[in-house]
Amino acid sequence: MKEKLKIVTIGGGSSYTPELIEGFIKRYDKLPVTELWLVDIEEGKSKLEITAALARRMLEKANVPIELHTTLDRREALKDADFVTTQMRIGQLDARILDERIPLSHGMLGQETNGAGGLFKGLRTIPVILDICKDIQELCPNAWMINFTNPVGMVTEAVLRYGVHKKVIGLCNVPIGMEEGIADILKTDRKNFFTTFAGLNHMVYANHVYKDGVDVIDEVMGKWGVQSVKNIKAMEWDSNFIKALGVIPCPYHRYFYMAKENLEDELEKYAQHGTRAEQVRQIETELFELYKNPDLAEKPKQLEQRGGAFYSDAACNLICSIYNDTRDVQVVDTMNRGAIGFLGYDQAVEVSCVITKEGPVPMAVGDLPDSVKGLIQQIKSFEIAGAKAAVTGDYYTALMAMMINPLCASQRDARIVLDELLEAHKKYLPQFFGDWKG
Amino acid sequence: MKEKLKIVTIGGGSSYTPELIEGFIKRYDKLPVTELWLVDIEEGKSKLEITAALARRMLEKANVPIELHTTLDRREALKDADFVTTQMRIGQLDARILDERIPLSHGMLGQETNGAGGLFKGLRTIPVILDICKDIQELCPNAWMINFTNPVGMVTEAVLRYGVHKKVIGLCNVPIGMEEGIADILKTDRKNFFTTFAGLNHMVYANHVYKDGVDVIDEVMGKWGVQSVKNIKAMEWDSNFIKALGVIPCPYHRYFYMAKENLEDELEKYAQHGTRAEQVRQIETELFELYKNPDLAEKPKQLEQRGGAFYSDAACNLICSIYNDTRDVQVVDTMNRGAIGFLGYDQAVEVSCVITKEGPVPMAVGDLPDSVKGLIQQIKSFEIAGAKAAVTGDYYTALMAMMINPLCASQRDARIVLDELLEAHKKYLPQFFGDWKG
Amino acid sequence: MKEKLKIVTIGGGSSYTPELIEGFIKRYDKLPVTELWLVDIEEGKSKLEITAALARRMLEKANVPIELHTTLDRREALKDADFVTTQMRIGQLDARILDERIPLSHGMLGQETNGAGGLFKGLRTIPVILDICKDIQELCPNAWMINFTNPVGMVTEAVLRYGVHKKVIGLCNVPIGMEEGIADILKTDRKNFFTTFAGLNHMVYANHVYKDGVDVIDEVMGKWGVQSVKNIKAMEWDSNFIKALGVIPCPYHRYFYMAKENLEDELEKYAQHGTRAEQVRQIETELFELYKNPDLAEKPKQLEQRGGAFYSDAACNLICSIYNDTRDVQVVDTMNRGAIGFLGYDQAVEVSCVITKEGPVPMAVGDLPDSVKGLIQQIKSFEIAGAKAAVTGDYYTALMAMMINPLCASQRDARIVLDELLEAHKKYLPQFFGDWKG
Amino acid sequence: MKEKLKIVTIGGGSSYTPELIEGFIKRYDKLPVTELWLVDIEEGKSKLEITAALARRMLEKANVPIELHTTLDRREALKDADFVTTQMRIGQLDARILDERIPLSHGMLGQETNGAGGLFKGLRTIPVILDICKDIQELCPNAWMINFTNPVGMVTEAVLRYGVHKKVIGLCNVPIGMEEGIADILKTDRKNFFTTFAGLNHMVYANHVYKDGVDVIDEVMGKWGVQSVKNIKAMEWDSNFIKALGVIPCPYHRYFYMAKENLEDELEKYAQHGTRAEQVRQIETELFELYKNPDLAEKPKQLEQRGGAFYSDAACNLICSIYNDTRDVQVVDTMNRGAIGFLGYDQAVEVSCVITKEGPVPMAVGDLPDSVKGLIQQIKSFEIAGAKAAVTGDYYTALMAMMINPLCASQRDARIVLDELLEAHKKYLPQFFGDWKG
Repeated sequence: MKEKLKIVTIGGGSSYTPELIEGFIKRYDKLPVTELWLVDIEEGKSKLEITAALARRMLEKANVPIELHTTLDRREALKDADFVTTQMRIGQLDARILDERIPLSHGMLGQETNGAGGLFKGLRTIPVILDICKDIQELCPNAWMINFTNPVGMVTEAVLRYGVHKKVIGLCNVPIGMEEGIADILKTDRKNFFTTFAGLNHMVYANHVYKDGVDVIDEVMGKWGVQSVKNIKAMEWDSNFIKALGVIPCPYHRYFYMAKENLEDELEKYAQHGTRAEQVRQIETELFELYKNPDLAEKPKQLEQRGGAFYSDAACNLICSIYNDTRDVQVVDTMNRGAIGFLGYDQAVEVSCVITKEGPVPMAVGDLPDSVKGLIQQIKSFEIAGAKAAVTGDYYTALMAMMINPLCASQRDARIVLDELLEAHKKYLPQFFGDWKG
Repeated sequence: MKEKLKIVTIGGGSSYTPELIEGFIKRYDKLPVTELWLVDIEEGKSKLEITAALARRMLEKANVPIELHTTLDRREALKDADFVTTQMRIGQLDARILDERIPLSHGMLGQETNGAGGLFKGLRTIPVILDICKDIQELCPNAWMINFTNPVGMVTEAVLRYGVHKKVIGLCNVPIGMEEGIADILKTDRKNFFTTFAGLNHMVYANHVYKDGVDVIDEVMGKWGVQSVKNIKAMEWDSNFIKALGVIPCPYHRYFYMAKENLEDELEKYAQHGTRAEQVRQIETELFELYKNPDLAEKPKQLEQRGGAFYSDAACNLICSIYNDTRDVQVVDTMNRGAIGFLGYDQAVEVSCVITKEGPVPMAVGDLPDSVKGLIQQIKSFEIAGAKAAVTGDYYTALMAMMINPLCASQRDARIVLDELLEAHKKYLPQFFGDWKG
Repeated sequence: MKEKLKIVTIGGGSSYTPELIEGFIKRYDKLPVTELWLVDIEEGKSKLEITAALARRMLEKANVPIELHTTLDRREALKDADFVTTQMRIGQLDARILDERIPLSHGMLGQETNGAGGLFKGLRTIPVILDICKDIQELCPNAWMINFTNPVGMVTEAVLRYGVHKKVIGLCNVPIGMEEGIADILKTDRKNFFTTFAGLNHMVYANHVYKDGVDVIDEVMGKWGVQSVKNIKAMEWDSNFIKALGVIPCPYHRYFYMAKENLEDELEKYAQHGTRAEQVRQIETELFELYKNPDLAEKPKQLEQRGGAFYSDAACNLICSIYNDTRDVQVVDTMNRGAIGFLGYDQAVEVSCVITKEGPVPMAVGDLPDSVKGLIQQIKSFEIAGAKAAVTGDYYTALMAMMINPLCASQRDARIVLDELLEAHKKYLPQFFGDWKG
Repeated sequence: MKEKLKIVTIGGGSSYTPELIEGFIKRYDKLPVTELWLVDIEEGKSKLEITAALARRMLEKANVPIELHTTLDRREALKDADFVTTQMRIGQLDARILDERIPLSHGMLGQETNGAGGLFKGLRTIPVILDICKDIQELCPNAWMINFTNPVGMVTEAVLRYGVHKKVIGLCNVPIGMEEGIADILKTDRKNFFTTFAGLNHMVYANHVYKDGVDVIDEVMGKWGVQSVKNIKAMEWDSNFIKALGVIPCPYHRYFYMAKENLEDELEKYAQHGTRAEQVRQIETELFELYKNPDLAEKPKQLEQRGGAFYSDAACNLICSIYNDTRDVQVVDTMNRGAIGFLGYDQAVEVSCVITKEGPVPMAVGDLPDSVKGLIQQIKSFEIAGAKAAVTGDYYTALMAMMINPLCASQRDARIVLDELLEAHKKYLPQFFGDWKG
């Protein structure tokens, strides 16, 4: 008789779900999932039904005997789960529009993983995630939570600090993308070199690229040019600057090292096309139209064009390594444990880890140069303050978070944007709107 | 017979020298200086003569038997000195004009203690300071060097790292000004409370204000408003922001926490009045006209209007405490020795110290909140990189320094401004213009 | 009208009280105590009456208007106190006899400030001290607790970790004795040099001796020889060893650096004369006979022959500096705050401090050499484990404490001695004798 | 054509060489060694010939085409090597006899990996190892040096600090033995659980034992009893003590946690049988008699009875993983890089590592409890001081090393034993006997 292997996906109505299904199908030999539960909330019910139907067609076509369940009752699904993945957007795309529009309207970057928008996505998400932790602790205490809800760094930090269930791993597709960029430069496959990563989520650096026993990072840095992720514009890195930095930045570093150009560009796009969220809404509508097609029984190619592509596959890969105690190296968000010396032992970092049956163990690769310590420390402080504000609902902590982030260049704007976002998201921020008077 | 007490002032032709003379006159009972040597370079000879003549009139009027000497030969002066003060501007005001104009012309803050301008003042100054260290080590190895040449933080860091003579103390008037602001708020004299300071030069925070055994910093933060130094515009702090920060910032923090408004303001002033350096030149000319008046035998009031006022008096005070082993508390730039936990043991910091005959001993007051760690780390990294670039003449290190500083918001602008400043200051940057090809 | 200044001495029936009285009398001008309360327990009532009567005669003779009160009700005394000193021995000399005899009978050092005996004195004392903290927090929350109850290091650690009132300062006479030894070597008065101390209680090192601006520690180390405290035997230090160590050890370091000779000596003395506690009992009896003499109105000379001499005077001196915000340097046990880099920020250390109205601020003098880090870390771990065991009553934590201490050389003996001491002190260890079965 | 893979074994005449040969034979498929060079010195020539002849018979019997070379010229062998293993005893068994006899004759533990004997083995070995580093840097700079010459911790520390070639890995069989002990307790194979190790060489602790995703260390600690290595006596651990410690000690911890019993036992054995070295000499003689047998073509069973058994196999295993970039986990001595938070970044530690083509990367498993920090810090300081003394020949540094080690309980004995050992090993300690006058 087959052993039970139960996986729960919270936010199962996401447009990314087909990638997840594909990931489980292609790994079925090594990862014989018995039950997969897609969970969503009332507002997401119709999307959930669409993705579930597509998922069933995919499983049937692949002839893979995974039982698929859908439910709006999270607790029903969690009972005895082995792995829980979380992908959600509290307040859905309407909230994201506000996260982007309000900062942009005051000349600040508006974006849902960092800066003012990232802070508010964190403030809305963290209480929900912590509630899920409570359910997991009660219903499936041995389960690993694999989170790819942004802002991943702040959410992981919050779970490590405040969660009753600490078995959390944050996940991002950025390091994989960077490795592919390095592979292009080295004209070889990713298997033929070994890159070490250290930093924070969306603030990760590659600090060594080993090939045939030699560190070839200087060669890679000299050729590091246009690297983009789907939802941020490609801009050219100056290889002199990269050399001065001494490590390879990730695409999101553009927000900081090309702050001026990036902001100008974002403001221009906003003036022309509105927010990215509004574009995403359009793309999502089209995707769900595709998904409804009863003849479709595989992940459509169009999904790969989105910013979050490969997240779900990375999640399947991580689950597979834990399940099989593979002890291979993956880059995840987890507790530092000394890997990055100037950050706290208990803080969430993004770092190369050995993936064991007992979860990720960071590798001590994190000796980052002075050139990046300050920025990392600032974003770490931002994450800590954001997590604290999300839990306490304290206005001043939220203001501090806003101001620490280098994307905010003025104490005055910080307050204005903070106050507008608090008002705009009132409905999803009960922690701020009890006794509090700003 | 009176014991010898010899003081050497390098940059003796400075317009601030009368304050120094006044400082020695008023402390003569406790600090019986026997010889004071004013040293300057050929280009400063006429100024040196003017300040020396005024100084002689001041000493005579006060009836204080300090022998005054002037020389253009630094080594002659240093022989057996007990204290050496250093106040200089390599390239004089012409260089400062460039330090301000070039960054401003590219929309960056242009200023001689921080950012691009501060970096270049450091690159020009540090080699000269290190040469002075060599002379001191040879001619008066027990002497303390009291430096108030900006950028004080970077210069102190450079001496601690690369100097053959390590007995250096950096000095700034900012903490004194902040204490006066606190005294205004508390409606009492500075003697009646005890403020602890920790951070870096021009990036120092007050983290406790003890009065009658109680920390009243919350009260002070709630009322902290307009605090300015002479050469930067007063802008109002938002007390909500200060409360969120959790410590009291110094006036120079405006560059960061009000980056947007401050930059707009600086650019506007530049458009209207040209650089600050050009205004200073006008003020200096007027001051020296005053100094020439043979009837003047005291420090003119006008000197107190300048940004550097009280530096020289602070230097006299510091020298007096060392000489007498007073063990009182002063805020100076010195080696950290663990006082600020997240910075290196050997790094230069600005912190409350006990002043002993053996120099300053930092007090362990430096537990700063997360809200400021990132910014401090960035500026510390900036100072380290600047010091290294000044010594090595390495282009990439200079570029890294430029880019680490949060006042530079673009890798592209960093290179442009760096290249222009290197070209503009070529004459004073031999370390960069040997074999180097950018 | 005179301002109130109320001091409470818990353990007021101690034979050391006359020194305390003398200390307040001689400082009355600077420290105008209005009320002094001597507190003791029922078992100490007759001693309390004797010391109080002597104290009254002393105050009268000195014509100093301090109101003297005695009480067996601690809470009555504490109301609105400004300073609370604590000097006590739970279980009195009978308990000390056991602390010494049981370890010695198994060939281990038996001593009430370190090793097995020190651990048990801590286990008995800490719960009482923490209760006093509760009373202080309720009845006089602004008061400083000045503790000289041994083991001072473990008690201070316990208050910092578990106390509801954290304003505690531990005090010891060892650094003063070391300074006097240095003065002898330098043939000068203690005022003419400045020694910095860092380490733990009874494990403190002098790491600099500044005289006329020069560190003369090498000279002092070369001559460091016989240094003793009253209750441990003088043994000669080998100056080659001191030079190898690189810092000056305190007398209690004999337990470690001369472990073999010291133990042999202690065992021999024990065989000949019984425990030190038994001798002390004899001395105490004689002292109290002296105290009863109605003609005695000053501190008898004989008191200075005891090991605890100068503690009380040091306490008066400390109180005087806090009261007057003197900001002079004293060596006390307080929170590290980064002063000793390899120990935790929150851990209790013994270090040179500036004494302010707000208490001691450690000076950053604690860069101790590798030669002593391990031993300090072991004793710090011993103190932490002891404090934890005292609060939790956990057998395994107590066993760990016993075994960490280098004075215990065998896991087997550790258990035997632990079990015997637990049994012997059962009455005073309620935390261990609830549910616990060893 | 086959790629070159050249291995050099310095100390090739060692009696352990047959194990190394066996290790290469059984891994030949994955590790196709082309050349193996056995190097020894003139005094070891006859042994080298015996082991080489046996090795040739073993290779022939196994039909493995590894070219075997012998030489007394180290530099000839090193040219273009890929891996260099080092196993040697400067002064041979005669020196070991002195390392054991002299301390034992003064009542101290006499042993060649720790304490006084370990220090002197380090003092003799380190200069030779550093010379080998120079040769490697010149002749085969990409080669990894795999050192299993004791004291491995001190030697590794010395190479990391003072070596011109830093690619060194220290190796020990202790963790493997501990894993086997754990396997016995869990009644399963080593493959079925995952133990993490952290500490120093011969001072390593197991701090987690993961089995099926759960840490079962409490179960293992409860049953941890008699664990021995070949050359130290089995003594029973008290499981209560282990529980108090909170981690699993290694067999060598007996020297510290059973110091008294262990010393008594060693002294008794010494009185009865003389030194261990003398017994080893007898065993070696017998082994070489066996090796001479022309019919012997495999590793004799008797070799497994010796203390150093499995070292050579571990070396083959390590080389195999590096060569194949296996990224499996092995416990080796390497640079800390933050894995053990309270030790320095650059210090040598023994810790679970991922073995990559670029060498070992420590895993961040090193959060050891307070109970063991002090002892580890002491031994680390001992290793640092020993390495420094070996390089500088400074008497006081050697004395400090001797005294830091907890196995030395008296400053007086430290000097006596130090002086006797210096005199006894004069011939092999040129660094001490140039200008030096003790």
